Amino acid sequence: MLVIGELINTSRKAIASAVEEKDSNYIKDIAKKQAEAGAHYIDVNAGTRVHDEPETLKWLVETIQEEIDTPLCIDSPSSKALEVGLKAHNNGQPMINSITDEKERYDEVLPLVLEYDAKVIALCMDDEGMPDTGKERLKIAKNLTDNMIEAGVKEENIFLDPLVKPVSVNTDFGQEVLDAIEMIHQEYTKVHTTCGLSNVSFGLPNRHLLNRTFLVMCMTKGMDSFILDPLDKKIMSLLIASETLLGKDDYCMGFLKAQRAGKLVK
Amino acid sequence: MLVIGELINTSRKAIASAVEEKDSNYIKDIAKKQAEAGAHYIDVNAGTRVHDEPETLKWLVETIQEEIDTPLCIDSPSSKALEVGLKAHNNGQPMINSITDEKERYDEVLPLVLEYDAKVIALCMDDEGMPDTGKERLKIAKNLTDNMIEAGVKEENIFLDPLVKPVSVNTDFGQEVLDAIEMIHQEYTKVHTTCGLSNVSFGLPNRHLLNRTFLVMCMTKGMDSFILDPLDKKIMSLLIASETLLGKDDYCMGFLKAQRAGKLVK
Repeated sequence: MLVIGELINTSRKAIASAVEEKDSNYIKDIAKKQAEAGAHYIDVNAGTRVHDEPETLKWLVETIQEEIDTPLCIDSPSSKALEVGLKAHNNGQPMINSITDEKERYDEVLPLVLEYDAKVIALCMDDEGMPDTGKERLKIAKNLTDNMIEAGVKEENIFLDPLVKPVSVNTDFGQEVLDAIEMIHQEYTKVHTTCGLSNVSFGLPNRHLLNRTFLVMCMTKGMDSFILDPLDKKIMSLLIASETLLGKDDYCMGFLKAQRAGKLVK
Repeated sequence: MLVIGELINTSRKAIASAVEEKDSNYIKDIAKKQAEAGAHYIDVNAGTRVHDEPETLKWLVETIQEEIDTPLCIDSPSSKALEVGLKAHNNGQPMINSITDEKERYDEVLPLVLEYDAKVIALCMDDEGMPDTGKERLKIAKNLTDNMIEAGVKEENIFLDPLVKPVSVNTDFGQEVLDAIEMIHQEYTKVHTTCGLSNVSFGLPNRHLLNRTFLVMCMTKGMDSFILDPLDKKIMSLLIASETLLGKDDYCMGFLKAQRAGKLVK
């Protein structure tokens, strides 16, 4: 399981303010808390800073690295911003969020994946848009994966994101993602799958309940990474319990340790 | 989804006392609360009453029927007790808990299933004991199902219970059950699967967290019935959210209704 902490994103008001005021202590604190709560990577996104995204990313990366050794997930649709973030990164193997099968974006981001030997989140979308069905997702996933492997990316560095869409728009959209996860893992043994969960509940009340339920479903189908809020004790409890129930927690030691540390809800 | 409320069982102290004191109001109240919380069947088990199990079952069935119209699930390993309970039942189609593939029990319970046109929980165990793997479960499930169908039981009345065993004993025991559920539903289109969840967490702390996580996993693999405590708001919330995410809740109306009624945890 690879948890990517999602909290350092300038689309969140508290982060936007901290960035505006160069409040490095606040950023460091949120980074540290996520790592302590179990994040293996800390996502860093400054996408709302239209006029200075690269500089902001650089400052965030450097600030977080003063505090923790956890590697970072550099998050931007812009290859220029990604490159600045990657250059500033020195906490081990970086992660790139994200490449897609859109021709222009693929061609711009691929060289960065290779140059920095980075893990990379690959979104299952192409120039025709976002897929609806599991089969359409698999087709894009195969294209992305096969091309990246041929270009020299290691299979185990690829994290395919099937792209979660709201069940409020189409009640089949949850099952289609679950089917995609299963098919991807049947096709590739070393490739990983990841996703953000919150889109699944868009348009509905009580979104956290739906999001964390969907996490368990995705794990049941083989998903082995998530972009989430690791400070959300309810979702982390279900994640840890799921690993134990799926036989991925030898002697249930991870569960017992989390329980003793008070990390699990009742 | 078919929810079987598990609370009326003399192995629970409060029920044992109520039975001892013939406190019909307490029994009626627990039955009514389970039905209101979403139970489609109310399980009735007097197994600890070694000397008067049939009479106690009869009293419980009659008492509950004075209060609610919800059908009952008559729960005993003894065909004599089952028969007394079934004779007293007049809340529509009864359910029998349970038949197994043990020769003697099968031969004794099958005639009751046919005579009362009952739904029946069929435990995946035979005279060799309880299976470990998914494949062993499937083998017993097929034997049970094929023989019952040949004897005249309707496929849609069969609820196969794969038998949940503790992950604390063997970390693979969760996944083996999940595999069994998937294989059973691939093999039969109309047969149902059900289980009690609590065995999965035996020997571990924080059992409710593990049990309700496993419910979501079982549903993801196709399970469509559970024997559980419908007054447990956390488990019922995950059940309702799972139906919505699996595309079994048209227009998400069930979820929205449950949310408005205050039935969902945050």
